[in-house]
Amino acid sequence: MTKMRKVFLSEKEMPTQWYNIQADMPNACQPPLHPATRQPVGPDDLAPLFPMELIKQEVTRDRFVDIPEEVQDIYKIWRPSPLIRAINFEKALDAPVKIYYKNESVSPAGSHKPNTAVPQAYYNYKEGVKKLTTETGAGQWGSALSFACGFFGIELQVFMVKVSYNQKPYRKSMMNTWNANVVASPSTLTQAGRKILEMDPDSPGSLGIAISEAVEAAVTDPAAKYSLGSVLNHVLLHQTIIGLEALKQFDIADDYPDVVIGCFGGGSNFAGISFPFLKENLTNGKNSRIIAVEPESCPKLTRGKFMYDFGDTIGMTPLMPMYTLGHNFMPPKIHAGGLRYHGAGPIVSQLLKDKLIEASAVPQKECFDAGVKFARSEGIIPAPESTHAIAQVIREAEQAKREGKKKTILFNLSGHGLVDMAAYDQYFAGQLEDFSVTQEEIEESIAKLAVLTA
Amino acid sequence: MTKMRKVFLSEKEMPTQWYNIQADMPNACQPPLHPATRQPVGPDDLAPLFPMELIKQEVTRDRFVDIPEEVQDIYKIWRPSPLIRAINFEKALDAPVKIYYKNESVSPAGSHKPNTAVPQAYYNYKEGVKKLTTETGAGQWGSALSFACGFFGIELQVFMVKVSYNQKPYRKSMMNTWNANVVASPSTLTQAGRKILEMDPDSPGSLGIAISEAVEAAVTDPAAKYSLGSVLNHVLLHQTIIGLEALKQFDIADDYPDVVIGCFGGGSNFAGISFPFLKENLTNGKNSRIIAVEPESCPKLTRGKFMYDFGDTIGMTPLMPMYTLGHNFMPPKIHAGGLRYHGAGPIVSQLLKDKLIEASAVPQKECFDAGVKFARSEGIIPAPESTHAIAQVIREAEQAKREGKKKTILFNLSGHGLVDMAAYDQYFAGQLEDFSVTQEEIEESIAKLAVLTA
Repeated sequence: MTKMRKVFLSEKEMPTQWYNIQADMPNACQPPLHPATRQPVGPDDLAPLFPMELIKQEVTRDRFVDIPEEVQDIYKIWRPSPLIRAINFEKALDAPVKIYYKNESVSPAGSHKPNTAVPQAYYNYKEGVKKLTTETGAGQWGSALSFACGFFGIELQVFMVKVSYNQKPYRKSMMNTWNANVVASPSTLTQAGRKILEMDPDSPGSLGIAISEAVEAAVTDPAAKYSLGSVLNHVLLHQTIIGLEALKQFDIADDYPDVVIGCFGGGSNFAGISFPFLKENLTNGKNSRIIAVEPESCPKLTRGKFMYDFGDTIGMTPLMPMYTLGHNFMPPKIHAGGLRYHGAGPIVSQLLKDKLIEASAVPQKECFDAGVKFARSEGIIPAPESTHAIAQVIREAEQAKREGKKKTILFNLSGHGLVDMAAYDQYFAGQLEDFSVTQEEIEESIAKLAVLTA
Repeated sequence: MTKMRKVFLSEKEMPTQWYNIQADMPNACQPPLHPATRQPVGPDDLAPLFPMELIKQEVTRDRFVDIPEEVQDIYKIWRPSPLIRAINFEKALDAPVKIYYKNESVSPAGSHKPNTAVPQAYYNYKEGVKKLTTETGAGQWGSALSFACGFFGIELQVFMVKVSYNQKPYRKSMMNTWNANVVASPSTLTQAGRKILEMDPDSPGSLGIAISEAVEAAVTDPAAKYSLGSVLNHVLLHQTIIGLEALKQFDIADDYPDVVIGCFGGGSNFAGISFPFLKENLTNGKNSRIIAVEPESCPKLTRGKFMYDFGDTIGMTPLMPMYTLGHNFMPPKIHAGGLRYHGAGPIVSQLLKDKLIEASAVPQKECFDAGVKFARSEGIIPAPESTHAIAQVIREAEQAKREGKKKTILFNLSGHGLVDMAAYDQYFAGQLEDFSVTQEEIEESIAKLAVLTA
C-alpha cells in the first residue's frame, strides 16, 4: 500500500456556496466611514466603485451566499484544489506533527487570487460594466484579475507598483497575454499619480498609491468600476471556498487540524483557509488555533493599532476600522510584495481584537529558509508570501517537538514562486536582508492618524 | 446544473503500471548500434550510463511495467492530473468539435517532465548512484530532474544550452533552489565542451553539444551516471501514465477521442499522451488518429530521413534508427527550446514509418496565435512547446467546420509558459520570426551521415 498523499474532491463535491463569517461573529465590525463626511457609508456611496451585488455581499449577514453557476464553471478549470499531506516535509522536520496544505498554486494564475477575481469580474459583467481598474503590487492580483476579465470581455487597466513593474517583467507579460493594460504607478494617467510624481519623480510607488490611482481612474470614468483583491468583506467571502473544500477533504481523510495557518497581507488567503474552520470553533465546539502570519517588517497585526484608517495613501477610500500602521507607512522592500500593506481589513481586525485568532510575525530570511526547505522536500517552490505560512509551520513543529505533543497542522500554500525566482537568487547569493521596523517609526506613522479618530 | 469541466481521478485510481508499446508494435525497432563497433549494443555497453533497471526497461517486451511504490508516492504530489474539457476554447473556435486536454502543467516543475525524472532518479538511487549528469535546453527537463533528485539525495550536474542559460535565468534559479549545479554549455568542464569552445569561443551551444558534455561527464566519473529526458524507450514508457490516466478519465466522461495530439521534440510528451490510445487502436478495435506536431523549423518527422544517427553532436551516444535531420543540424532559435532536437527516437520513428501515427509541422507564429487564443479563453498560458499541439487542434477544428463533421479531440498541455514569458513579449511586440529550413539544408545535413549507413 502506498501512502495517502492527497485528497481530491470531484467537481460534484465542490462547494456551491461561500461562507460569510459576519453571520457568526460575536461582535460585528464597526461600519466603514465616508472619507469626507465621516458618516457610515451606504450603498450609494459605494456605487461608483462596485456593482450592487458586491456591495450587498459586503454587508450581508447571510451565513451562506450562492456561488453563481457561471462562476462555478470557471472555478472548475482548477478547482477543487487538492489537499496534500506533506509527508516528506514532515520527515525533514522530524517532529510529532502531521502537516497538510491546500495547494492554491494550481490555478492558471499561480495563486489563490482568481477565487475572487472571477466572481468580481462576473458581477461587474452582469451589471453591464465594460471596464475595470485595479492596482497590483508583486502582480499576483493583477494577473488574476486579467485572467478573470478575459472570460467576460471586460477591459482592464492595472496600476502596478513601479518597483515591481521593473523587477517582475514576467508578471506584466502575463497580464498582457490575458489582454490587460498595465502601467507603472505612480503614473501620469491620474491626478493622484501626477501629484506624487511632482513631489518625487523617482517614486518607486506603493500599494497605497496604486490604489489611489485605480480608484480615481474608476470614479472619473462613468463606464468603469474598481476592483480590489483583498481587505474587503466580499473578497474574503469569495476566498472561503478554500477552507470549505478543505473541511470536506479533512472529512474524507478522517482527520482535523489543531492549527490553521495562513500568511497575511490584506487577509484574503488567510480568511479563505481559516474562516470555515473558525466557524467550526464558533458554532460546532471545535477548538483549532487560527494563526495569521505577517512579515516582521510590516507588523500591523502584532504591533499596529486598532483604529479607523484609509485603505489608500491619498485618502480616497472609506475609513475602515482596523489594525493599521498608518496609511502613509512605507513597508520595506521585502520580496513578499503581496504582504506589503499597511492595514488589516475590518473583519480580521475585529476577530483579532476579540482574540478569536492569533497573529505572528516572521523575518524575511527565516521565511526563505523555510521556503527552500519546503521546495527541497515537497518539490513545490512557494511564493515569497506563502513562505511566511511555512515558517510558522516550522515554529509550530519545533514547539511540538520540544513539548513532545502531537499536532495536526493545516496551512495554505497561496501560490507558487516560479515568477519570483529573483528573490530566491538573492537568498542563495546571501543578499537577502532582514528589515526591522522600530517602535518609534510605527508610533510616528500612527500619530499622523490622530486626526482620524478625533 | 453546471457543466462538466474536468475529470479528476482519485489517488486510488492512479495507474500502478506503465504501458510498454514495444509489446504491441507490429514491427519491432531495429537495435541501437555501438558508436565504435557498429554492433548492436548490449546491457554492458550501457552500464556506464544507466542503472540496470532502466537498461532492462529499454528493451523489455513486457506489456506493462510496475511503477515502484516510492515513485507512486511522489507522483501523488501532483498526479493524477486533471482531464479538462476546454469549453471556452471550443466556444472561441465555433466548430463542431469537443476538445479535451490533459493538464500536465500542474506538476511542481510546471511540465510533464517529472513523470520520468522521478523514476529515473529512483532507480539510480536504488542502485547506489550518488551523482547524475544531464543536459537541458530551455530548462524544463533540467528543472524536473533537479526536483526529482532532491527526493533521493542525488547530486546533479546540469549542462544547460548557453543561449537558454542566458535567456532564461529563472529556470536556472529553479534548479538551484532544488539544489542542482548548473553550468552553461559548452563549458570548460569537459573535453567535448573545450573542443567546441576552441573552435568557437562564442558558441551559443545546442542540445546535441550539451548531451555530449553530460555523457562525457558521466562516463569519466565512476560515481556518476547519466540521465536523458526524452527519446529513449524507458523515458517514453514512464510518460505513458499521462495517457493511461486519460483513458480512465474518458471512461468516466463517457466519451472517446477521434484525434489525439501531442507536440513533438524527442517524443516524451507525445508518447505519454498517445501510446495508450494507440494500444486501443492496435489491440482493441479503436481507430483514433494520432498526430505528432513538430516545429516547421525542425521538421525531422515530416522532412527528415529514416536512418541510423547519433543522439548527440560529438558522436558519443549509440547510433539509433530514427527519422533525423542529421546530428549536426542546428535548429533555428525558436522559443520552443524543448522541440529543437535533430532526431525522433526509435519507437516513434518506427511507428511513423509503419503509418500508425501521423506527423504535422507548424510555424512559430501560428503556434503563438494559438497559444494566446487558448490563454484568453481557457485561462492557462501554455509553454511555447505546448502551443504546437494547440495550433494543430485549431487546424483540426477548422477542418471539421469545413467538412461539417463532428470530432472529439484530445491534446496534451505539456506545460505552462510562466517561465517563458519573454517569448510572449516578443510575440506581442511583433518581433517573432517564422524560420524556414530549405530542402537543400536538410539534404546537406543528412548527406554528412552517409558514412553511418555504409
